[in-house]
Amino acid sequence: MTRQLHFNLFLHDTGHHEASWRLPESDPHANLSLAAHQHLAKVAEDAKFDSVFLADGPALFSEPGRRPSGKLEPTVLLAALAVTNSRIGLIATASTSYNDPYNLARRFASLDHLSGGRAGWNIVTTAGEAAARNFGLQDQPLHKSRYERADEFLEVATKLWDSWTDDAIIADKESGIHAVRDRVRAIGHQGTYFRVEGPLNVPRSPQAHPLLVQAGSSEDGKDFAARWAEAVFTAQPTLAESQAFYADLKRRVVAAGREPDQVVILPGIVPVIGDTEAEARELDAELERLIAPEHALAQLSTILRIDPERLKLDEPLPADLPDEDEIEGMKSRYTLIVNWGRRENLTVRQLIGKLGGGRGHRTFTGTPVQIADTIQQYFENGAADGFNIMPAVLPSGIEAFATKVVPILQERGLFRTEYTGSTLREHYGLPRPANQLELISQ
Amino acid sequence: MTRQLHFNLFLHDTGHHEASWRLPESDPHANLSLAAHQHLAKVAEDAKFDSVFLADGPALFSEPGRRPSGKLEPTVLLAALAVTNSRIGLIATASTSYNDPYNLARRFASLDHLSGGRAGWNIVTTAGEAAARNFGLQDQPLHKSRYERADEFLEVATKLWDSWTDDAIIADKESGIHAVRDRVRAIGHQGTYFRVEGPLNVPRSPQAHPLLVQAGSSEDGKDFAARWAEAVFTAQPTLAESQAFYADLKRRVVAAGREPDQVVILPGIVPVIGDTEAEARELDAELERLIAPEHALAQLSTILRIDPERLKLDEPLPADLPDEDEIEGMKSRYTLIVNWGRRENLTVRQLIGKLGGGRGHRTFTGTPVQIADTIQQYFENGAADGFNIMPAVLPSGIEAFATKVVPILQERGLFRTEYTGSTLREHYGLPRPANQLELISQ
Repeated sequence: MTRQLHFNLFLHDTGHHEASWRLPESDPHANLSLAAHQHLAKVAEDAKFDSVFLADGPALFSEPGRRPSGKLEPTVLLAALAVTNSRIGLIATASTSYNDPYNLARRFASLDHLSGGRAGWNIVTTAGEAAARNFGLQDQPLHKSRYERADEFLEVATKLWDSWTDDAIIADKESGIHAVRDRVRAIGHQGTYFRVEGPLNVPRSPQAHPLLVQAGSSEDGKDFAARWAEAVFTAQPTLAESQAFYADLKRRVVAAGREPDQVVILPGIVPVIGDTEAEARELDAELERLIAPEHALAQLSTILRIDPERLKLDEPLPADLPDEDEIEGMKSRYTLIVNWGRRENLTVRQLIGKLGGGRGHRTFTGTPVQIADTIQQYFENGAADGFNIMPAVLPSGIEAFATKVVPILQERGLFRTEYTGSTLREHYGLPRPANQLELISQ
Repeated sequence: MTRQLHFNLFLHDTGHHEASWRLPESDPHANLSLAAHQHLAKVAEDAKFDSVFLADGPALFSEPGRRPSGKLEPTVLLAALAVTNSRIGLIATASTSYNDPYNLARRFASLDHLSGGRAGWNIVTTAGEAAARNFGLQDQPLHKSRYERADEFLEVATKLWDSWTDDAIIADKESGIHAVRDRVRAIGHQGTYFRVEGPLNVPRSPQAHPLLVQAGSSEDGKDFAARWAEAVFTAQPTLAESQAFYADLKRRVVAAGREPDQVVILPGIVPVIGDTEAEARELDAELERLIAPEHALAQLSTILRIDPERLKLDEPLPADLPDEDEIEGMKSRYTLIVNWGRRENLTVRQLIGKLGGGRGHRTFTGTPVQIADTIQQYFENGAADGFNIMPAVLPSGIEAFATKVVPILQERGLFRTEYTGSTLREHYGLPRPANQLELISQ
């Protein structure tokens, strides 16, 4: 069989465009609606997507006034979706900076058990003071120490997931032995950030470990991904940048001693689909008109770490912005925006329009065939193993993608017409991890 | 309408008797099975129970060998049950010692949103070194400081749940205003254990706060319950002890400045139901025969803090056990067991038999009418507002209770024949909390 595309649906209530909730068709309470999320996951599962995904952070990051800003906690919400969907993978974002490894490893093991092996963890280190201040800190931990803690967090979590062997439970009613005692082991972790005795109080799960996903694109982030990630989300505005990122990350994976095909790279795309090009462009324009510029200016100034007064809507970005090195948190987002504005010589207004739609991700505006062509081009030219689909408007954007774009790619033999595996790892063609503690303590 | 009973089903895979998994009818993998939990919740919902409940702690507390010991994390598991059940309340245990208030408040708010107002939180401080060692501590925090932390945890959590007013979201598409900015407020908490800025990133939920449940019966535990709890689980082996507990707790509730009927007291009962008395006694005896004494001895010696060698199966408990004051953790369980053994002059073997079934809770063995009579006796004589039902064997024990005991109580007008409310608070007849931050910041 030819190499196959992978698709993830990035769940985002009424859509990834920040003004999408204002469209007549949109339910402005979708962010808190189980039914709305169930519908999105069902559309994606009917289209044979590999997974759905929820972004997250433990703080109210955006000002609540201008768009739906409350979010249900992802492991809890995806547990509910596991019941109404039987095949699609379920990827929850959770922070290594603001969780304890024992609790979080357990929640993912639980989600993996109850979904029959469909759990994935998008690992984030969580930038920003807003989160820090909800956890007793005045300022966020430094970038470097966040990633050091993340490494140790993963070390602890994977040991906990391996603290039961796969054959630990024998459930022998006759002898009264439920588990073989020496197949359930303490991990005795003593590190810089964590001391965790173990074992986990959940037996080894169907996938052994949830699929490990990562999206940091800073230098530290890419090195972390090379060590741990099995799927990578990334924001790349052009084909050339996608190709460069793809080659760079696969090289780092090899340098970390892993096989390059053990990591699936999924750039984000914002498909804006019309039956004609004119229809697609009209949808794009309608959304841009709905953006409230004062809100967008405030957001942009936060990312750029400058006074909002210094941003003039009809002028380009100021020339004297700080270097990426001086930035703590969302480094790669910062660089992407600054480079984009300068490369295309955009005014602040134009830049805001593009960010409102794709937030640095590639917007594909066009007919279903044009979008399928672009996807195929990326896939066959070293830019992607699949895509993180981020429709500007939901549910209509994923319905259009599922019914109009997916069939074209299926006809071309590039995307599955039926699920062949049952776990999320099987969907992505990734192996079930061996048990790292198995040999040590026998 | 006459005062009504309340029933909670204490979910516990194959049953509360530690040997229940060894019965021919039992699925020994029920502890990890979503379907098994769904079935139990459905039986309880069909019988119009107020709620189901999961105990929990962040450690593998019992030796894994002798009974199913892995447990799915309750907030995740109950989120899945929320989808397959539409009326029954969902009470998850979570620890104030080993969670951050921001994360936990958010998970309960999320569960409350996605269940349409059916979330409850059984608040525990988590005794034991096993848990402490999974969170970087060598020993458990002292009893006193665990409760001080719990008080501050509740203060933070309730403020976070109140950090959005009920009318914060206006979702006005025309003006582009989704939430009214000054109706979403930081909490700025600066305390001894926590500094939490807020606001929560989840809007106020259907119940405002999850139902607050508590089960500690030590002096500190009862005072904590008097301040915070709206439902209390308790283990009381006799009617007289239940009455004493009931009177004592209601007195403390009044002393804490609350109305006595704002707290619902639910003793645990282990109904062992036979169509004849002889049949019920035979089920009791069968379970006692299945207990492995060496395992039970190890468990008992842990609770009593003595060397297992000092426990002789056919002799009474040693005379020189420590005082409750010297015990850190599970104080009330300790006292209950020691008093029980001495009062009835039981041998260790007899005590183990009773603990295997009820673990200190009252075992009601008899016909459906006998059990209904005992429930009514407790309910009408100041011993209970309802019961925490803990069948020795599941699902058969709850099926028998639902189909044989509940109809008798319904005929007597003591238990609902249909749900009249939609939220867990409405089931228990408890009010939705007012917003404590509402007036302060307007």
